[in-house]
Amino acid sequence: MTTGATVKRATEVSPWPKPEQRQRDRASKREAVLLRAVEFFNEKGFHATSLEDVAVSLHVTKPTIYHYFANKDEILFACVQRGLEEIRQAAEAAEQAGGNGLQRLHALLIDYAMMMSDGFGACVGRTPDHALSPESLSRIKALKRDTDVIVRRVIEAGMEDGSIAVADVRLTTFTALGALNWISRWYDPAGPLSKREIAEHSVDMLIGGLAARSHKVAEGE
Amino acid sequence: MTTGATVKRATEVSPWPKPEQRQRDRASKREAVLLRAVEFFNEKGFHATSLEDVAVSLHVTKPTIYHYFANKDEILFACVQRGLEEIRQAAEAAEQAGGNGLQRLHALLIDYAMMMSDGFGACVGRTPDHALSPESLSRIKALKRDTDVIVRRVIEAGMEDGSIAVADVRLTTFTALGALNWISRWYDPAGPLSKREIAEHSVDMLIGGLAARSHKVAEGE
Repeated sequence: MTTGATVKRATEVSPWPKPEQRQRDRASKREAVLLRAVEFFNEKGFHATSLEDVAVSLHVTKPTIYHYFANKDEILFACVQRGLEEIRQAAEAAEQAGGNGLQRLHALLIDYAMMMSDGFGACVGRTPDHALSPESLSRIKALKRDTDVIVRRVIEAGMEDGSIAVADVRLTTFTALGALNWISRWYDPAGPLSKREIAEHSVDMLIGGLAARSHKVAEGE
Repeated sequence: MTTGATVKRATEVSPWPKPEQRQRDRASKREAVLLRAVEFFNEKGFHATSLEDVAVSLHVTKPTIYHYFANKDEILFACVQRGLEEIRQAAEAAEQAGGNGLQRLHALLIDYAMMMSDGFGACVGRTPDHALSPESLSRIKALKRDTDVIVRRVIEAGMEDGSIAVADVRLTTFTALGALNWISRWYDPAGPLSKREIAEHSVDMLIGGLAARSHKVAEGE
């Protein structure tokens, strides 16, 4: 055993955490605040949620919350941002997976729909623009555009390989994502269908349409 | 000229309004408050709207507003209720119009989409459940169910006559109306497309689906 190894061992038994450990602790506490806050926002709404409630449910006092976030607006922003990052990552993964455009769009929309049912994704769907400050809103809009751009690319790939046929890629993106965003407004975990069942039914409807396949689309004949 | 007619004429030139006229004035003033309030709610959001702003923009003081509504919550409830009544009337009219199930659903969804772009309809789409008091919410939910029931009946009629083919009528209703509800969240009157263009594109997509007609639905193949 070398002297260096002995010194290292002594450090390990110190009752004080190492700086890296302290940083990890701080990060995991910040994360716990976010996770609890998003539950409250989704359940009661942003305006009806008090940081006092969030603090009490984490067995701390409100000033402890302020070690991690300046105010409730900052927590909401962090929740929506996190949701949009999760959505973007899932969309990127679906875009890069195998299959034709329609298959990749199917996978992307299923993931998207599942994320709208709870957690940070539901918070994205449930947070109106005017709940965010102007500067938060412009960052959130940029993140939403990132996902829109991926969805549009996948739809365009499907139009090129012949698996997707739509008249307007931009409006199709808004309409399809809008239908799935709305899940965040009505999904009830106590309801008869699971998150996955709802995602599959909704996405099948968007992909297949309401019209029987023998009927013309625009005319409804 | 009879005595009766002369008496009637004398009443007509009285500087005081008749009771019926007074009631009409009251109703039209109440209506003016609602119409202005819904613009503020749609533009700034319910929480950021003050009745002071609404009053000033109508050239009155806040106490005048309180002649017509007890508080801001009551105004929001009246706006959402009005929107849902307009939607239900349009849905009933579309159900009773001619054509097969798909044609009637097409007409219903177009009207619904147009109503989500502004006014009381947009207020329905933009008002989250938790902005309403528990008793308001249960009345609003009952009104929403009325429309859901009509949409489901039209979809079922289309499944019977062979013009519509979907796996789950209830979820299809949620998904299609959800896509159109979302228009209330993103529609911008200054944007490149009119209300009607957006309604037609969105409804065509819901009816026709994303998949090219030669492709299978669920598999995306």
